[in-house]
Amino acid sequence: MTTTSAAPTTTDVPGRRTAAQRLAEHKPFWDTERETMPPRQREAVILERVQHQLRYAYATLPFYRRHYDAHGFSPDSVRSLEDFTTKVPVVTKKDLIADQAAHPPFGSYLGVTPRDIARVHGSSGTMGNPTMYGVSHRDWARCGQAMAMGLWCAGFRPGDLVQVTFPFTMFFGGWGNVQALELLGAGCFPTGSMVPTERQIDFLHDLSVDAVIATPSYLAHLGQRAEELGRPVSGSTVGLALVGGEPGGSIPAVRARLREQWGGLDVIDGAAGSTSEMYPFLTNIGCLQDPDGGVHLFQDENYTEVVSRDDPNVPVPVGTAGATVATHLWRESQPMIRFWMGDEGLLDDAPCRCGRTYPKLPRGVFGRIDDMLLIRGANVYPSAVEAAVRATPGAGAEFRIVVDRPHDLDEICVLVERDADLPEAEAPRLQADLEERIRRAVNVRVPVEVVPPGSQEAQTFKARRVVDNRPRG
Amino acid sequence: MTTTSAAPTTTDVPGRRTAAQRLAEHKPFWDTERETMPPRQREAVILERVQHQLRYAYATLPFYRRHYDAHGFSPDSVRSLEDFTTKVPVVTKKDLIADQAAHPPFGSYLGVTPRDIARVHGSSGTMGNPTMYGVSHRDWARCGQAMAMGLWCAGFRPGDLVQVTFPFTMFFGGWGNVQALELLGAGCFPTGSMVPTERQIDFLHDLSVDAVIATPSYLAHLGQRAEELGRPVSGSTVGLALVGGEPGGSIPAVRARLREQWGGLDVIDGAAGSTSEMYPFLTNIGCLQDPDGGVHLFQDENYTEVVSRDDPNVPVPVGTAGATVATHLWRESQPMIRFWMGDEGLLDDAPCRCGRTYPKLPRGVFGRIDDMLLIRGANVYPSAVEAAVRATPGAGAEFRIVVDRPHDLDEICVLVERDADLPEAEAPRLQADLEERIRRAVNVRVPVEVVPPGSQEAQTFKARRVVDNRPRG
Repeated sequence: MTTTSAAPTTTDVPGRRTAAQRLAEHKPFWDTERETMPPRQREAVILERVQHQLRYAYATLPFYRRHYDAHGFSPDSVRSLEDFTTKVPVVTKKDLIADQAAHPPFGSYLGVTPRDIARVHGSSGTMGNPTMYGVSHRDWARCGQAMAMGLWCAGFRPGDLVQVTFPFTMFFGGWGNVQALELLGAGCFPTGSMVPTERQIDFLHDLSVDAVIATPSYLAHLGQRAEELGRPVSGSTVGLALVGGEPGGSIPAVRARLREQWGGLDVIDGAAGSTSEMYPFLTNIGCLQDPDGGVHLFQDENYTEVVSRDDPNVPVPVGTAGATVATHLWRESQPMIRFWMGDEGLLDDAPCRCGRTYPKLPRGVFGRIDDMLLIRGANVYPSAVEAAVRATPGAGAEFRIVVDRPHDLDEICVLVERDADLPEAEAPRLQADLEERIRRAVNVRVPVEVVPPGSQEAQTFKARRVVDNRPRG
Repeated sequence: MTTTSAAPTTTDVPGRRTAAQRLAEHKPFWDTERETMPPRQREAVILERVQHQLRYAYATLPFYRRHYDAHGFSPDSVRSLEDFTTKVPVVTKKDLIADQAAHPPFGSYLGVTPRDIARVHGSSGTMGNPTMYGVSHRDWARCGQAMAMGLWCAGFRPGDLVQVTFPFTMFFGGWGNVQALELLGAGCFPTGSMVPTERQIDFLHDLSVDAVIATPSYLAHLGQRAEELGRPVSGSTVGLALVGGEPGGSIPAVRARLREQWGGLDVIDGAAGSTSEMYPFLTNIGCLQDPDGGVHLFQDENYTEVVSRDDPNVPVPVGTAGATVATHLWRESQPMIRFWMGDEGLLDDAPCRCGRTYPKLPRGVFGRIDDMLLIRGANVYPSAVEAAVRATPGAGAEFRIVVDRPHDLDEICVLVERDADLPEAEAPRLQADLEERIRRAVNVRVPVEVVPPGSQEAQTFKARRVVDNRPRG
C-alpha cells in the first residue's frame, strides 16, 4: 500500500528553500525518542495511557460514566489494546451534541472547571447550537508541542515565513497552527480569510513567503488567480504547503494539480482523519520525505484505530479499509475516547523513508461514512440547511441539496420550491433571503435556486433530499 | 486634571465578578518593581534605554542613519531626557511609507533578518501598499509580557473567560491580546469579527463570559442588538470590557452609555495614543481602580512625550495639551524612536489610586492632528477613498467625504458625482461598484450616494473634499 513516489519534489526556484535544504538544515525530528520508538514499545505506552484515560473518564466525567454504565462496560476490563478495540463503546458526534444540549455549554465531559479553560472554540453548528470546545491550560500547552511536532514532520523549520490563510474565528482551524509555528520558531503571517485573494498573492510574492497553510481548494484558487493576474506562483518562493480543513490534501489529482500550478511545491496533508474534537490536529500529517505517501499517525498522542464500518468493536487488519476511531491519550479537557470519526481509511505500518516509526493512512481518508458534507473546509450538515430553509418565509415544502464534485472537491447547491402563495416576481428576494440564512446557518456561501411549487417530488425521508451526483469510485 | 469618579463601578449581577473581587483575588501588580518605581528612578532607566536605542538605530538601521544625518543629529548629543525631546528629529508615518516603498517590504529599519521574524502584520494600507510590520522573536516574547502587564492593569485575571471580537486578519489588533491572555492565564474565546452579532450575544450569555474585548462601537452594537433580541446584556456576567481600535474608550459620553447599556461594567480604554507602529499596544491602558481616569503610560516600555503641535522638539508642560510622540525602548525590530503619532493629548503625573507610578493621559487622546479618519476601528485615509473613486468607471470628477459624529463616534459617507456620459439609470450599479471598491480600499463598509454631474463645486485642493460636520469641542 505504500506509494512509489520518488524523493521530495520541490522545484529549484531562485529564493525557494527546497525539501532537501529543509531536511539538511536542522535536526531530523522534533522529538527523536517518540518519533522513532519501536512500535511494540510504543504500544506499551499507548496501553498505559488508554487505561489511564478510561479510569479518569469513568471516575470524573459523568458523560463517560453514564455511557459506559449503559453499555455494561467497565474500564478495568481493558488489559490490552485488543481489549480496548473490542470492548470500549465508541462515542459519536450525536452523543456529544446531546450531552452538550443537556449540560450546556461544554457537556458533562469537560473534565476541568470553566476557570481552567485556556481556549474556547466552536463548530459551525446547526440551528444556533454549535458544538463547543474547551481546552484546559495544561492541554493547550501540551497540544502545542504535538502540533509543532506535526509541523516539523511536514518540513516547517525555524526561519520559514508562513502565510496562514485559514479563517481566524470561532473555528479551531488556524489557531493551533499559529501556536505551533511560534513554538517551532517560524515566522507567522496570519492573513486569515478576510484579506482579498489579490492581496494574498501580492503578499506571498512581495514578502518572499516560504510556505502557505490553506485549504486545498483555496490553494488552487490562489494559484489560478495569480496566473490570471500575471503574477504566477510557479516562480514564487513558496516551496511548501500544509493543506487542511477538507480532504483534498490526500487526493492524488488535487495534489498533482497543486504541484503543477505552484511550480513543484511540496503539498503536505494535515487534515486526513482529523476533526475539531480531536485537537491537537496535526497528529495526522504527511512527512516531507514522502508527501505522497499519506499521513503519519502520531499514535502516542492521538491513537487511531481502523475498525469495521458496521461494528466499531471489530478491528480490521492493517491494509484493509474500515472506519477510523480516535482517542486522546493525554487530554484532560473534553477527552475523546474511541471517538467515531465517520471517516473511511486504512492503515499501513510499513517503514517510511523519513525514519518515523508511526504508521500511516496511506490514502488519507477517502470517504465519509456519515452524512456530514465538507464544503470548502466547513462542516455542512444537511439538517442545518434544512433548518434554514424551513425558517424562511415564502419557501415551499420541498427542497433538494445537490452535491457534486465538478473537479476534485465537493460543491453543493440548494434547490428550493417557492410557496404556492408567493408570486413568482418575489423569487429573487426569496433566493437572496435563503442564501443569507443558509450562509448564517452553515458559515459557507451556498448558491440557491428557487424552483416552482410542486416541481419536486414530495419526500418523507430526510435523507432523500440530498441528491448526490458525485462520481463513485 | 484627575477625575473625581468614585471606586470601580461594576454592578453586582449574579455570576458577575466585580472589580472589587478582581482586585482582591490576586496580586495587585504584574510586575511590582516596574509599576511602582519612583518616577525619578524610572527616568534614569528611560534615559539609558533611549541612548541605547539611538546608538543601535544609528549604527544598524539605514533609515535612521540617513534621517539623523539629514537633520545633523548625532546620538551622542543626548545626555538627558530633555536632550532627547529637544534634539531628536521625529519620524512620521509618511517617512515610514516612503522608506518601505524604497526598501520593500519592511523598509530599511527592520533591524533583523527576515528569518528572525516571528510575526508579520500589516496596516489596511492605501492603494495596495499597506505598511508592513515585522516583529522579531525576541520582541514578540518581550511584547507579550508588556501586553500581559497591560491586561493585568485593566483588571483581567487568571480564570476570566474573555470573548475577543476584534478581526483576526493581517491587522495587528486582536493578536497581541490573545497572546497576552494566554500568558496571563485567562481563557480566550477569539470569535473575531466574522461571527454574526446574534451569535456573539448568545455566546456571551451561554458561556457566562467574564469580559469582552471590542471596539467601543461594536460593544455598543452588541448591547443594542441584545436588547432588541430580548437577551439584554445588563444582566450578563460580563463585568469588564477592554475597548480599542478607535478613540471612543476615553470619551466620557461613550463610556457612560456603555456602562448603562451593560448594567455597570467597567470599561477600560486600551487604545488612546497607540498605533500599530507602537506594538506592544497595551502600554497605554486604563486601570481598574480608576477606569474613568484615562490611560496609564508604561513609560519604561514605550516612552510617550507630549510636545508642541507646531514643533516636535519643543516640550509642553505636564497638564498642557500637545501632540504625542512615542518611542520603543526595547524593540530591536522596526523600533520607533520619537514617532509622531498625530494624536492630541496631555500628561498627568498625579498619583493614581491604583498605586502605579506611571503617568496618565487623563482624557486619552482627544483629537487627530493629521487627516486620517478612524471609522469603526479602521484607519481610513481620504486619499485611499479618493483612489477608489478615481478607479471606478462611470464616476465623475467630483466627490465629497462627509464626516459626521451622529452620536459619539465618527461615521462617513461618500457623495460621488456620476460621469456626465453615464445614464441616470446606471446610478445604482455605479453605487454598488463604488461601495465595493471603497470597501476593498479601506476595509470598512462606507455608504455611497451617487449625485448628478456638476452638483458639487469643483475643487482644486484635495483637503476640501472632506466635509467635516463633526461637532467642535
